[in-house]
Amino acid sequence: MNIPEFKEFASASIDYIADYCENIRQLPVLPDVEPGYLSKALPKRAPEKGESWKTIMEDINKSIVPGLTQWHSPFFHAFFPTGQSYPAIVGELLMAGIGAVATKWESSPAVVELEVRVMDWLAKILGLPEEFLNCSEGPGGGLIQNAASDSTLVGILSGIYKKIQQLIDEGSPLLEWQIREKLVAYTSKESNSSVEKSGMIASVKMRLLSTDPEGSLRGPTLEDAIRNDKAAGLIPFCVVASLGTTGTCSMDNIKEIGQICSKEKLWLHIDAAYAGTAFACPEYRYILNGIENVDSFNFNPHKWMLVNGDCSAMWFRNCRYVEEAFKTKATLKVPKYQPEFEHMQIPDVRRFRALKLWFVIRIYGVDGIQKHVRRQVNLAKYLKELVDADPRFEVVISNLGVVCFRLLAEDSITQAILERITKRKNIYIMPYYFKSQLLFRFVVCSRFTLREDIDKSWNEISTQTSEVLKILGKKYCRNVERMCGSKGM
Amino acid sequence: MNIPEFKEFASASIDYIADYCENIRQLPVLPDVEPGYLSKALPKRAPEKGESWKTIMEDINKSIVPGLTQWHSPFFHAFFPTGQSYPAIVGELLMAGIGAVATKWESSPAVVELEVRVMDWLAKILGLPEEFLNCSEGPGGGLIQNAASDSTLVGILSGIYKKIQQLIDEGSPLLEWQIREKLVAYTSKESNSSVEKSGMIASVKMRLLSTDPEGSLRGPTLEDAIRNDKAAGLIPFCVVASLGTTGTCSMDNIKEIGQICSKEKLWLHIDAAYAGTAFACPEYRYILNGIENVDSFNFNPHKWMLVNGDCSAMWFRNCRYVEEAFKTKATLKVPKYQPEFEHMQIPDVRRFRALKLWFVIRIYGVDGIQKHVRRQVNLAKYLKELVDADPRFEVVISNLGVVCFRLLAEDSITQAILERITKRKNIYIMPYYFKSQLLFRFVVCSRFTLREDIDKSWNEISTQTSEVLKILGKKYCRNVERMCGSKGM
Repeated sequence: MNIPEFKEFASASIDYIADYCENIRQLPVLPDVEPGYLSKALPKRAPEKGESWKTIMEDINKSIVPGLTQWHSPFFHAFFPTGQSYPAIVGELLMAGIGAVATKWESSPAVVELEVRVMDWLAKILGLPEEFLNCSEGPGGGLIQNAASDSTLVGILSGIYKKIQQLIDEGSPLLEWQIREKLVAYTSKESNSSVEKSGMIASVKMRLLSTDPEGSLRGPTLEDAIRNDKAAGLIPFCVVASLGTTGTCSMDNIKEIGQICSKEKLWLHIDAAYAGTAFACPEYRYILNGIENVDSFNFNPHKWMLVNGDCSAMWFRNCRYVEEAFKTKATLKVPKYQPEFEHMQIPDVRRFRALKLWFVIRIYGVDGIQKHVRRQVNLAKYLKELVDADPRFEVVISNLGVVCFRLLAEDSITQAILERITKRKNIYIMPYYFKSQLLFRFVVCSRFTLREDIDKSWNEISTQTSEVLKILGKKYCRNVERMCGSKGM
Repeated sequence: MNIPEFKEFASASIDYIADYCENIRQLPVLPDVEPGYLSKALPKRAPEKGESWKTIMEDINKSIVPGLTQWHSPFFHAFFPTGQSYPAIVGELLMAGIGAVATKWESSPAVVELEVRVMDWLAKILGLPEEFLNCSEGPGGGLIQNAASDSTLVGILSGIYKKIQQLIDEGSPLLEWQIREKLVAYTSKESNSSVEKSGMIASVKMRLLSTDPEGSLRGPTLEDAIRNDKAAGLIPFCVVASLGTTGTCSMDNIKEIGQICSKEKLWLHIDAAYAGTAFACPEYRYILNGIENVDSFNFNPHKWMLVNGDCSAMWFRNCRYVEEAFKTKATLKVPKYQPEFEHMQIPDVRRFRALKLWFVIRIYGVDGIQKHVRRQVNLAKYLKELVDADPRFEVVISNLGVVCFRLLAEDSITQAILERITKRKNIYIMPYYFKSQLLFRFVVCSRFTLREDIDKSWNEISTQTSEVLKILGKKYCRNVERMCGSKGM
């Protein structure tokens, strides 16, 4: 492919993206394909000779788009948002064009230095403590990781290193392996499955603790668990707290948890993957109350902050632990400058991801990011009002852009409604089990979402609920009515 | 940013990339900046109000490009190639525009299915065994990981799981934690530092074994190490072999190693990060002799196969071990189809990376990829000829696009020459210590490299060697001459 062909192909792709974004509202949010559809459509072997880009664009239309779940449709209410915006798309384009990667400073000064500066911008936007900044006097700093899963794992590994060092310094008679065997970490039952997975990868015990009725991990629960484990001869070393759990976007009480971590010398890692973006708005920073005891903090600009993946931001109060934990003897010999990002992540090499983050922050401005958050929270509040106004439902828990509500009936009816909605493919909404109840989990995801889209989504839920109740007949309807009565309507 | 602005910004970026690639030969390969240069140039806080894209493009020119190490310059001979090509750039653009991510099949059928199919294409291009294919009857399969580091870690973790299961099945009296404490893995001293790091992350002992004079790990060395460890009561469980070590691109003898792994029931993971692309050419497949005993295999299309990062390809002979090793109890409840990619990697979510891989394979064709490999190997052979023809130097080891050679003099002179070359910034070449000798490590990296560029790079090395010898005076020159005499010239 020569330069004129590249320009044609790239220009056609830009037009394609523009059309795609403009018409996203018209596309079915869930694809109408069966498993294996693409294997049937594509040849079994790669072509021997190169093909034309026009053939590929035809295949995109014919085979790829019909099999896509539209994550940016205003009717996509599943999982969490995945970041996408015009500045971020161009950022990815330029990243790919320049094609620079970095290990140490020398391998790409601009790549390392832009990340250093933009991560400081981001920390200030969120109101994180001065100690986390790369430009601070102390040993703190931040960098871009691949994913929240990577960040959690890196946080846990730092905690392991710190605890082992502490016990050795205190003259513990245990060998390193005896310490490792006894290490135990804590998180809540509501935290992301990647927390449990990180514990498995790091070979440490991970306790999944119960939450309060709001889905929040509280101090006394943690204290009890620590007391029991210590009595059993184990060594508590780390807590992974969620600010915004995956199911209900609940906030662990990091004030209570942090005080315990401080007293017990436990590493406190915060997973704020989705909700972290909200801290750009001062009105949500009360959730960070307790941050003074946090050792590492992570959120994903590639979720709610309009940045395309991968872009997971992570800060450390003291980078020394992770650097020491990851340092190996074997390296290509090159002179060394700060920061040592390659010793603060799972891979050694990093792409120029700071570029797209820089673009998004500059094109939107802090103001634009705040507006985006507030607009989406308001849309979630609007959905909550619609649910509240329907006597068949009750909102169980609602935080930021996430609204979890239930039908006042047996779980089997909820299940039937959700299955029906999924089959119709007009909106994508997911079930979530919370405190043994099956909930509708509704998230405002797309940056294109308008109030009228929420109306349409709610209309789909409401009418399909009526349909299912009608099909199920009088018995079930009476059940629902009786329960509605208990709601006082 | 609205759609017309997006189109303008993206079009300007495409022109920028085209100019950049066309003029890459003229840019200094190493930037002339001091640490901290960018912090001085950029504001300390993010802008409150959004800025225009034109301001950003000005800053790219003014502040970013002058601080870039040009990884795609034909005079970049450091590290390894990092993939970049026109189809891959457009692939990244469309990936970002569509902005789909996948966990399970339902979350984006096209994303999962394209990866399944393209990984099969790729396995066939490399001539990997049928058992590794997603379309095979058995439990094998392949997926795209972030990096070779991730793949090595995932391979090691699979090996841990398999060994523990095996011992439990055999009725071992040891508890899981007692087994873990005794686990030991093997790799060579020449393998990438990420192998040692993966061992640290997985909390297992990692022996760095000596290589033969060619930098290759051989069977008897491994056998000795296993015997010693077993005698000490340890449990060998895994070997990470390199096909293309980081320093000299040496090939471990996987025939010998594989037979031992089979006999001793050790997981055999292959790290072919750079060299794997060469297996697209049948003439290099003899290196894969022994693949029948390999459990997991990884190479990086984002190194030598013209695909932009991240794109690290990994296959398993049996996916069951990794899936079981990574499965957690807590997940969002959704129905399930094969394959379970989210249980075969460190993060849970994956981008639509198959798209760019698909573009590169289709636009280049197998034929185009083979031509690229052969062209670069021929350029390395040409450089080798130039070195051979200079009596002051000798080629120590040369594999594929990597040529390691030494000056027939003390290391301090080589050091002085390399420092001088780096300061002049005309080419980027790195030192490498191999068997206690300091070598010039020269890699053909850029896809733009021509024979005349190799001439220029060699001319820089040759003339700067002369300069340094002249400066150091007669004594050192005599040394070099005497050593040249011993080379028989």
